[in-house]
Amino acid sequence: MDPVTSTRAVVLASVPHGAPRAEDFALTTLPVAAPADGQALVRVLDLSLDPFIRSTLGGTHLGDRAVGVGDVVGGRSVAEVVASPDGSLSPGQLVLVETGWVEHAVVDAATALPVRVPEGVPTSAALGALGMPGLTAYAALVRHVRPEPGESVVVASATGGVGSLAGQLTVARGARAVAIVGSEEKAALATEELGYAAALLRTSPTFADDLRAACPDRVNGYLHMGDQATLDAVMEQLAVGARVSLIGVPDQNNGAAPTRMRVGAVMAARAEVHGMVVYDHHDLAADHVAEVGAKLAAGEFSMPEDRTVGLEQAGAAFAAMMSGGNIGKVVVEVAAR
Amino acid sequence: MDPVTSTRAVVLASVPHGAPRAEDFALTTLPVAAPADGQALVRVLDLSLDPFIRSTLGGTHLGDRAVGVGDVVGGRSVAEVVASPDGSLSPGQLVLVETGWVEHAVVDAATALPVRVPEGVPTSAALGALGMPGLTAYAALVRHVRPEPGESVVVASATGGVGSLAGQLTVARGARAVAIVGSEEKAALATEELGYAAALLRTSPTFADDLRAACPDRVNGYLHMGDQATLDAVMEQLAVGARVSLIGVPDQNNGAAPTRMRVGAVMAARAEVHGMVVYDHHDLAADHVAEVGAKLAAGEFSMPEDRTVGLEQAGAAFAAMMSGGNIGKVVVEVAAR
Repeated sequence: MDPVTSTRAVVLASVPHGAPRAEDFALTTLPVAAPADGQALVRVLDLSLDPFIRSTLGGTHLGDRAVGVGDVVGGRSVAEVVASPDGSLSPGQLVLVETGWVEHAVVDAATALPVRVPEGVPTSAALGALGMPGLTAYAALVRHVRPEPGESVVVASATGGVGSLAGQLTVARGARAVAIVGSEEKAALATEELGYAAALLRTSPTFADDLRAACPDRVNGYLHMGDQATLDAVMEQLAVGARVSLIGVPDQNNGAAPTRMRVGAVMAARAEVHGMVVYDHHDLAADHVAEVGAKLAAGEFSMPEDRTVGLEQAGAAFAAMMSGGNIGKVVVEVAAR
Repeated sequence: MDPVTSTRAVVLASVPHGAPRAEDFALTTLPVAAPADGQALVRVLDLSLDPFIRSTLGGTHLGDRAVGVGDVVGGRSVAEVVASPDGSLSPGQLVLVETGWVEHAVVDAATALPVRVPEGVPTSAALGALGMPGLTAYAALVRHVRPEPGESVVVASATGGVGSLAGQLTVARGARAVAIVGSEEKAALATEELGYAAALLRTSPTFADDLRAACPDRVNGYLHMGDQATLDAVMEQLAVGARVSLIGVPDQNNGAAPTRMRVGAVMAARAEVHGMVVYDHHDLAADHVAEVGAKLAAGEFSMPEDRTVGLEQAGAAFAAMMSGGNIGKVVVEVAAR
């Protein structure tokens, strides 16, 4: 095999204002240096696209690197080790590592984590149900929402990378999960494959009534990854003692006005409301992977994936995701193994 | 002593729009029936004025009786038993009981609780530091804010019935208490008598900067009983892991727009936010009375009181309180013992 001296890469072409568009990203070719000791050359297989990346484009996200025009967009991948001069990794080994939107990358070997998924589970699970989105759902359920059997838990963005697992974890705990979704197709996935008792179209003019009908005993738990109107409707239906996990405000990545929550609704429900940042919950990762890995391996949990082939499609796939066009965890298949 | 056959009483003269005024209340005389078995005739000594009463005027508050025009305004009192036909209470005994704004009342004997305050503590403590406002502060601290030594806890309405105790309980736990107040006089009380490390005027044009300066390591805990601007300023200064107890929105009693909380601030701080309704926390009452009673008896805690003499002053005192004019727990002295 010829040594790798260059890679295709996707860079930021223009800082998006509001919702990102495919043309905010550009494909280019960049040189790849030979890896030094402590480094490894990796070949990206599956690249993860995640909503938080939006806030790094021209800005910053909780200390993540800001991405300026001409910079490679950041992102985690499942990648194959090509070369590891100091022998700390093995060629052919699969690792989870920050590569950015590229085909080949030289990475710090110490930051590359071995990909471990149970027999029969796709390795891309390490980016989704067994990765950060999965841990987000797990921690929101275990630490914030804590569903009891028979309770009703509402999940916004219910078929996405976080929501699809949150719904299934809720049902596994004996509670009812109610989905909020953006399309009929997602509604069908939610009820037919993910175990939701009901799926509500957030764009429906009868959304608030639909929510009341789907949760006749009101809402005991809520995972928020939605817009102002969705939050407002759910907050008015909270049961006494409800728990709310604030996970994402995707519309704000697209330039919407800051989401605000009515204080009187929190007081009337004696609710507890938590802000979720997954970085705080890595201590739960072993429990998370054990439970979800077993359920995936047993075929009891689904992990819907929105898979796009080709690095050159990453910008378009990201733009579609940020407009709610994805169904399931968004992955760009940069190369097959 | 002549039998009591009538009482002076204060009734609602007009439903307030916005802040209540003294003229929304009228003094009248009402008949008093002889108490039957199971009832007691009581003489009101100290009548408690509490902010939640505002929402009963022409409306309802969590199941409390709505007060219409011509109805006696509701309120709890420390009262002296005059007669108890079935002997379940003793004449001369002091009880805590719902009497409304009257001089004499016939009450259900079973709802009258004996007033027990430690030696040397005024009996009106049963309406304030050892009563519902005190339990509110205690539960907000113990259940919601949970201050750790060295942390900074900000208390809005810091010299009121709830706030004055919350600040002292915070300091007793080794944390710093920072007061938000509405006047220089309250600021002086806060720092000189209640143990607050600093007191900030919420109306100051430099309030947000003052808050930053008073909490250089940001705000670990916050007890909200304030307006939108106060909430906004504090939410932007939350430390990671901050705890917020939403206790009251007094401006909404006066017709202000619904207070709203920025979701992004909760998320960035990974904060937890709780709605406080004191009725949920009666299981803490014994602990509350034991701790606070001992501190009051030892002279370690102060219980500032805003005492007005004469039932006919109740409307004016209530209007003043709802405009932030009180300093300490508001009590109307209807009769001396």
